Amino acid sequence: MLRAIAFDADDTLWHNEQYFQETQQRLSEILDQHADHDFVQAELQNMERRNIKLFGYGIKGFTLSMIETAIEITNNRISAAEIHEIIMLGKTMLDAPMTVFDGVEEVLNDLGRDYPLLLITKGDLLDQRNKVDRSGLARLFQRIEVVSEKDSQSYKEIFDSEALKPEEVMMVGNSVPSDIQPVLDLGGHAVHIPYELTAVFERHREDPDSPRFRRLDSITELPALVRQLTT
Amino acid sequence: MLRAIAFDADDTLWHNEQYFQETQQRLSEILDQHADHDFVQAELQNMERRNIKLFGYGIKGFTLSMIETAIEITNNRISAAEIHEIIMLGKTMLDAPMTVFDGVEEVLNDLGRDYPLLLITKGDLLDQRNKVDRSGLARLFQRIEVVSEKDSQSYKEIFDSEALKPEEVMMVGNSVPSDIQPVLDLGGHAVHIPYELTAVFERHREDPDSPRFRRLDSITELPALVRQLTT
Repeated sequence: MLRAIAFDADDTLWHNEQYFQETQQRLSEILDQHADHDFVQAELQNMERRNIKLFGYGIKGFTLSMIETAIEITNNRISAAEIHEIIMLGKTMLDAPMTVFDGVEEVLNDLGRDYPLLLITKGDLLDQRNKVDRSGLARLFQRIEVVSEKDSQSYKEIFDSEALKPEEVMMVGNSVPSDIQPVLDLGGHAVHIPYELTAVFERHREDPDSPRFRRLDSITELPALVRQLTT
Repeated sequence: MLRAIAFDADDTLWHNEQYFQETQQRLSEILDQHADHDFVQAELQNMERRNIKLFGYGIKGFTLSMIETAIEITNNRISAAEIHEIIMLGKTMLDAPMTVFDGVEEVLNDLGRDYPLLLITKGDLLDQRNKVDRSGLARLFQRIEVVSEKDSQSYKEIFDSEALKPEEVMMVGNSVPSDIQPVLDLGGHAVHIPYELTAVFERHREDPDSPRFRRLDSITELPALVRQLTT
């Protein structure tokens, strides 16, 4: 018995990781006299990992990590003008146009007639709110929740506050560790829709072993799956 | 008929603005060969204002604004090492010890026996969550909500979702524009507890003109006020 469908946002409903990867490419170009692209990427990943507890997931923390990486890689030789360029990369991301995936609005309109839809996304509150607003999809969701970490605990709190049992909820997302596994662990249903550029920290090696786990190639296949599961 | 009491967090339950002001002092010291303290403060305020729409309220955005201000004031002459110092100022703030005001825990324990208590705070989700966790006060609140802007709309959404009418809620905070006026505008009760170092953008000139407005010198006077109003 399905009573609600919850969606991840970034890279499930619209492009996001692509902006991070484009920005990382530009960072490598700024630093190209000091280090090659692979080294810059590896150092940036290390820095993000070291900073994640203080900065969380989001563009402002990512920008600060890029600046720190640049200072470290160049041994303090990067110029203020170049650091300013990095800040501008961050601002460009914060202001990036929303590119909603094809078919998303139709799918949400369709499923929204039968189920309350929840949006559950991770990151900076203001950034994520701004993206939802700019996507034009906000009106299709009964509830929009920004969390700082997508673990079983945070899903449980949201489901509880909506008086939903986990087994009555289907979570749809592109990341197994963030969107799928925690919900399966609670006893809920989960649909994985892979995205070509999934962020490194969201990658996984093995598929979840659960009868409540499904995978689709595209979100446009979701209404048919829901109907198949509930009839 | 009072059915819930809501509290602001920063500078209402614990020190916060003091850390921003100490950090600004340190920024002036880093920049002291380029500009005097007052000029640095004025430029930083301008920068924050220009950036607020993209960055919101929070330490990461504040740190990026400090870096941009430093680059601008020094005409690109600030060194990478000095910018690194500014990033470290931001990290120190993110990791700053929580100093809960005297008497807060007793007041919350006392009022929490008769009313559900809500915490409504503005800023970066992770920063604010971390602060609430480190304060040790989380267990005293029925609900903790981080919002990106404290306007009537966001208060109304929270009250609605708790099935509270505004006139059944008392909001307690140090900022008239953020904590007091929006709640009075909705028809709720508001108690202003001024803090000596209120941030510039939270200052106000005139007191609200409402019979539902009260002012106290200290949060320790709150239980007596609540009892007086409800008996």
